[in-house]
Amino acid sequence: MANKQNAFYAQSGGVTAVINATAAGVIEAARQHDEQIGTVYAGKNGIIGALSEELIDTGIYSDAQIAALRYTPSGAFGSCRFKLKGFDQNQREYDRLIDVFKAHDIGYFFYNGGGDSADTCLKVSQLSERLNYPIKAIHVPKTVDNDLPITDNCPGFGSVAKYIATSTLEASLDVSSMAKTSTKVFVLEVMGRHAGWIAAAGGMASGHLDIPVVILFPEVTFDRAAFMVQVKDKVEQYGYVSVVVSEGVQGSDGKFLADQGLKDAFGHAQLGGVAPVVANMIREELGYKYHWGVADYMQRAARHIASKTDVDQAYALGKAAVELALDGNNAVMPTVDRLSDKPYTWEIGCAKLDQVANVEKMMPAEFISEDGFGITPACRAYLEPLMEGEDYPPYENGLPKYIQLPHSLLDKKLPEFKI
Amino acid sequence: MANKQNAFYAQSGGVTAVINATAAGVIEAARQHDEQIGTVYAGKNGIIGALSEELIDTGIYSDAQIAALRYTPSGAFGSCRFKLKGFDQNQREYDRLIDVFKAHDIGYFFYNGGGDSADTCLKVSQLSERLNYPIKAIHVPKTVDNDLPITDNCPGFGSVAKYIATSTLEASLDVSSMAKTSTKVFVLEVMGRHAGWIAAAGGMASGHLDIPVVILFPEVTFDRAAFMVQVKDKVEQYGYVSVVVSEGVQGSDGKFLADQGLKDAFGHAQLGGVAPVVANMIREELGYKYHWGVADYMQRAARHIASKTDVDQAYALGKAAVELALDGNNAVMPTVDRLSDKPYTWEIGCAKLDQVANVEKMMPAEFISEDGFGITPACRAYLEPLMEGEDYPPYENGLPKYIQLPHSLLDKKLPEFKI
Repeated sequence: MANKQNAFYAQSGGVTAVINATAAGVIEAARQHDEQIGTVYAGKNGIIGALSEELIDTGIYSDAQIAALRYTPSGAFGSCRFKLKGFDQNQREYDRLIDVFKAHDIGYFFYNGGGDSADTCLKVSQLSERLNYPIKAIHVPKTVDNDLPITDNCPGFGSVAKYIATSTLEASLDVSSMAKTSTKVFVLEVMGRHAGWIAAAGGMASGHLDIPVVILFPEVTFDRAAFMVQVKDKVEQYGYVSVVVSEGVQGSDGKFLADQGLKDAFGHAQLGGVAPVVANMIREELGYKYHWGVADYMQRAARHIASKTDVDQAYALGKAAVELALDGNNAVMPTVDRLSDKPYTWEIGCAKLDQVANVEKMMPAEFISEDGFGITPACRAYLEPLMEGEDYPPYENGLPKYIQLPHSLLDKKLPEFKI
Repeated sequence: MANKQNAFYAQSGGVTAVINATAAGVIEAARQHDEQIGTVYAGKNGIIGALSEELIDTGIYSDAQIAALRYTPSGAFGSCRFKLKGFDQNQREYDRLIDVFKAHDIGYFFYNGGGDSADTCLKVSQLSERLNYPIKAIHVPKTVDNDLPITDNCPGFGSVAKYIATSTLEASLDVSSMAKTSTKVFVLEVMGRHAGWIAAAGGMASGHLDIPVVILFPEVTFDRAAFMVQVKDKVEQYGYVSVVVSEGVQGSDGKFLADQGLKDAFGHAQLGGVAPVVANMIREELGYKYHWGVADYMQRAARHIASKTDVDQAYALGKAAVELALDGNNAVMPTVDRLSDKPYTWEIGCAKLDQVANVEKMMPAEFISEDGFGITPACRAYLEPLMEGEDYPPYENGLPKYIQLPHSLLDKKLPEFKI
């Protein structure tokens, strides 16, 4: 068939518990449309795979292997942190992409990432006009930071929210048991350098049970005195408190709170997290015993406690991306459009990429409580359905049975390219 | 009935994901033997509840409430870190215990804790002879550290092992995806100040999949040069590596690695964890980008990923404690006796408390690989069944539906006692 072309799919930026569910959505939908799409080639380590002509042939995978991606966290084909420059600064990279696409008859470009990646995808979409190479470029949203505009939420976030809310709840019950003679404060550091969505999820620990949680958002300038009042009040009322702190919290001097200029005994600079900084402040000022945890990669890789809503949406967006491309769209991103909170209903929409790229969606002011340390009922109503439902992976011998796909690379047809 | 007496039950030391399952076992077994046991009174905040005559009446709880303890982490009645002194140093505390036991007709003492608690329980068991107060004192094992002797393993540990193995697996897949342009090393700090059982569980991440993990055990003196070779080799072979480090790792100077004499910009001492110390060393010496996490309370409270083996054993040991007491035993602890690895079979045994108290069970040498950075097949065979099986809590609105029991205290009959 004259129109049949191959597709390129790549994972970009920080990976998530459900980005592979999106990959499964893309590949399964492409297989269902094999009259129009040949094979899906995945970029090994994201867009770098396209530049270096390292293309993984997903055609060799069985349907069962693709289905297993749905419950396997992280990026099955490798990701990268790499942003294409503008046409004017570096046209050579765009020329190379066209060479690779031509060499492997690629007519569809599916890019699975966050805000920076949307910008890369937008630039690729413009190859059609700028460099006269016909391609359908579709961005598929993914980011635990939940900071893409237009879409109601981003795949990856709901599962992190479920993990952080659950971990905060569980650790809070623990501290509550110990508070009489020991720990009174638990500090949990979470991701989100610019937007406080993940920190907000810590506030969801208080739901069925009344759990005292103080949140430090990156959107709110750190006020040490006001924070200490919060901590003290909660400990006096409940006997204990949990503090959920975003890695991106800044002081009034505009510096990250985590950046305390720590030096070891030999005078070497030490990079610490923000959790120990906050915990030390509390000890200094209030004398409470504390514990602190840093959720780091555990939070975004925690497929074992993924939200079913999140998995379903991640998959649906991958599928929708293929359908949008087949309908002739270019430079767009499928979105999650919320129809109602309770019961939660949603459908797939479509956004123009030039309205998505490089725009960060912060927490709206009406989601943060007036004192700046908690979430509002409106925020709870937003977050709750995103955490809803369980979607457990299979287990064997006590461990989730995730899959690692072997990477079979296409034969290269082009000379080396220096990235 | 003349012999019918009440029971005292208390939770002691650091709590776990399954200590409440043991409480359910004790209370449900006592209810089944209501011809011999009146009511179970739980100490509010452990043994402190006995000294201060703060006794929680568990008789008011419905069967459904007690059943919900089976899937609720942490200590439902509060715990404490408090060790009774010897008779000679502080007989006044023992006299007080007898006064409280007499006042509330308590003939059974169930103490749910680790090594220190076993010592307290042993002392209480001696009240019979020493102070002529008849009591059956049974210790019920609990400790995520898995360091009690005689019993094959300790309730709480299997669930932590499952959590750490799963988290290490998930974070490793994440790092593996990012390694091309970003993070190559993930460092996870875990509990276990003296014994490396929890650190060993990190090695179980490599099972279905081949995951490179380097373990730093508290039993093995830290050798920086040898460690760097391990990290470098794994990164060169796999592209990335995960390091699981016990909080208790010490250098050849006998100092904790975590204790680096960190000072902030103002010269204040800062308490950090060992994970950032190890991560910084790797950056300094090998230049790899890294991430680090600290599992802290999250690991021992993670009921959402509890091991079914662990939950079953925690419950069975609680039930067995009651049966041992009714059979006339004193100064004993029910144990888990392993009959076979594969298929895994076990039964309840019984140990004398004087052989348990104050004895710590370290990792046997044959469980640590020759290079000191990994686990052996014998260790895997030991650990695997302890992580086996899932036992999910119920969820509502995306969050586990745990229970918090209201504490209804018995009326006090005695004057205040200063602890």
